[in-house]
Amino acid sequence: MSELALIERIAARARRRAGTELGIGDDAALLSVGGIAVVTQDLLVEGVHFDRATSSARDLGHKALAVNLSDLAAMAAEPVAAFVGLCLPPGVPVGDVDELYAGMEALAERHGLTVAGGDLSSGPALVLAVTAVGRESPGLPAPLRSGGRPGDVLCVTGALGASAAGLLLLERPELAAAVPAAVAGRLRAAHLRPEPRLEAGRALARAGAAAMMDVSDGIALDAGRMAAASGLRAVLELDALPMAEGVAEVAAAAGRDPRGLAAGGGEDYELLAALVPADVGTARRVASCPLTPVGRLEEGPPGLVALDAGGAAVRLETAGWEHDV
Amino acid sequence: MSELALIERIAARARRRAGTELGIGDDAALLSVGGIAVVTQDLLVEGVHFDRATSSARDLGHKALAVNLSDLAAMAAEPVAAFVGLCLPPGVPVGDVDELYAGMEALAERHGLTVAGGDLSSGPALVLAVTAVGRESPGLPAPLRSGGRPGDVLCVTGALGASAAGLLLLERPELAAAVPAAVAGRLRAAHLRPEPRLEAGRALARAGAAAMMDVSDGIALDAGRMAAASGLRAVLELDALPMAEGVAEVAAAAGRDPRGLAAGGGEDYELLAALVPADVGTARRVASCPLTPVGRLEEGPPGLVALDAGGAAVRLETAGWEHDV
Repeated sequence: MSELALIERIAARARRRAGTELGIGDDAALLSVGGIAVVTQDLLVEGVHFDRATSSARDLGHKALAVNLSDLAAMAAEPVAAFVGLCLPPGVPVGDVDELYAGMEALAERHGLTVAGGDLSSGPALVLAVTAVGRESPGLPAPLRSGGRPGDVLCVTGALGASAAGLLLLERPELAAAVPAAVAGRLRAAHLRPEPRLEAGRALARAGAAAMMDVSDGIALDAGRMAAASGLRAVLELDALPMAEGVAEVAAAAGRDPRGLAAGGGEDYELLAALVPADVGTARRVASCPLTPVGRLEEGPPGLVALDAGGAAVRLETAGWEHDV
Repeated sequence: MSELALIERIAARARRRAGTELGIGDDAALLSVGGIAVVTQDLLVEGVHFDRATSSARDLGHKALAVNLSDLAAMAAEPVAAFVGLCLPPGVPVGDVDELYAGMEALAERHGLTVAGGDLSSGPALVLAVTAVGRESPGLPAPLRSGGRPGDVLCVTGALGASAAGLLLLERPELAAAVPAAVAGRLRAAHLRPEPRLEAGRALARAGAAAMMDVSDGIALDAGRMAAASGLRAVLELDALPMAEGVAEVAAAAGRDPRGLAAGGGEDYELLAALVPADVGTARRVASCPLTPVGRLEEGPPGLVALDAGGAAVRLETAGWEHDV
């Protein structure tokens, strides 16, 4: 199929939603953002971020958009449109391209945005370069990473470790015996089709979150980044981390530390928010999902201190955990 | 160098300019667009769109941004920011990454925009996925492809065929003997470092351009697209096409039809505008670059009719020209 025919096929299936004045088909798209545009871009590269043996085309479409929407969620923004740059290697069936856009379109439908443009090319590997554009929610300035204050409580949405455990299950299917089939399915889905926390992001900002970011590289690394951006130190209580169902069992079967998956596994796409202690109760009521206090920000050398259950400092290594001596 | 270190290096060199409230370093960028955001995305893929043997890293950075700015020019927009997704194959020296961003930054400086975000990944080939975000110029709605009216004069900025001739010179250096060295240099530069017509785009919109687009795939194809979007027929006078200096000589040396390079060579990144006849004079005075009437829009089956000097219809083939019988 020619590039032009494929673009027409994609354009015919992209539904235009509120905020997109002009979508696919002109030199550029026109988006009504009303002041401040919130823009983010992520790459998904075959062989680096995904494997076509374990990710379906529909999964890929979903995930490529979801990881960008997660960034908009962290800014408490309302998504308006997405732009999809797609490199297609030889031999990808057109049905897979349809499925990829269908995965994106289903997620776009749920969050009211438009696939409003992009570009197509042949290439040596499947590459998805998605840019998401949102607008600031009315009266709700984006909470930045740098907004944390000493004494803020660090809270995380949902549960952690599911994506890392799901990836283990995809790479080593025999580990699935460690958990009920439904749990294994949820863990794999957490890796393949993460759900961006858009509603929670806006609710947390309304509840007073001073700093917010999405947890894409593991909460230990990301909390350290938020602290550093705020000129503070993050104290993370490892035993307070909410662990997704089945993570402990899969980690045990794989000979891995479950806290390593929860704190450092990455790709959970939960939100990390810094709130004054008095706002935590409200935030938990309005977040529309579980919200767990996991630590605090305090004065000190920028970076992260992780504490175990006894309050002892733990050093986090790339491949696991080690107590400080 | 680690991905993180490379991102920090890139962020340190990206200057924040007016309109970008928040650039690289948070989950998303914040751009002040004041109502309507104008957004476009283009991919440049190694082996498809460029060859590292003939394009320097600085050229690539320039071109990846320039082709996006050309789309904003066609919307008469003011560029605000660019987002750069970069796949790096193994072995690209960090100095080349610096040069690539330097090429982008130099062009961004001239047009007042900010490299405000993006993503980095390893990958099997060099891929540049650039998204440019602009705002509508005050009081100047974007002229769409579909805005053409019967009787409009089609005008094109600058001159055509330079990029195609430059590519011939890069692929077959011996052809350079056909033209003076300075001319050969300008033709190669037209291919490697096209200059987006941002100022001309706004001037043409102010002068009344009802439809506008950039000429990226050759004026024959693009004029046909504008006509089709407007529900009209484009009549293109082949002998009126402004041909860049040296194109005729390079085409002759290569055994190619110079009109083929001018009308179908592509990548000239000039602007094609539809104006009522009474506005053409004003448009030529304010365009800040040559502006040449090359045809008209008229009622008829959507598409393109090309006419030779005698007024006879010419059929355009992918690989050249053929008179209709």
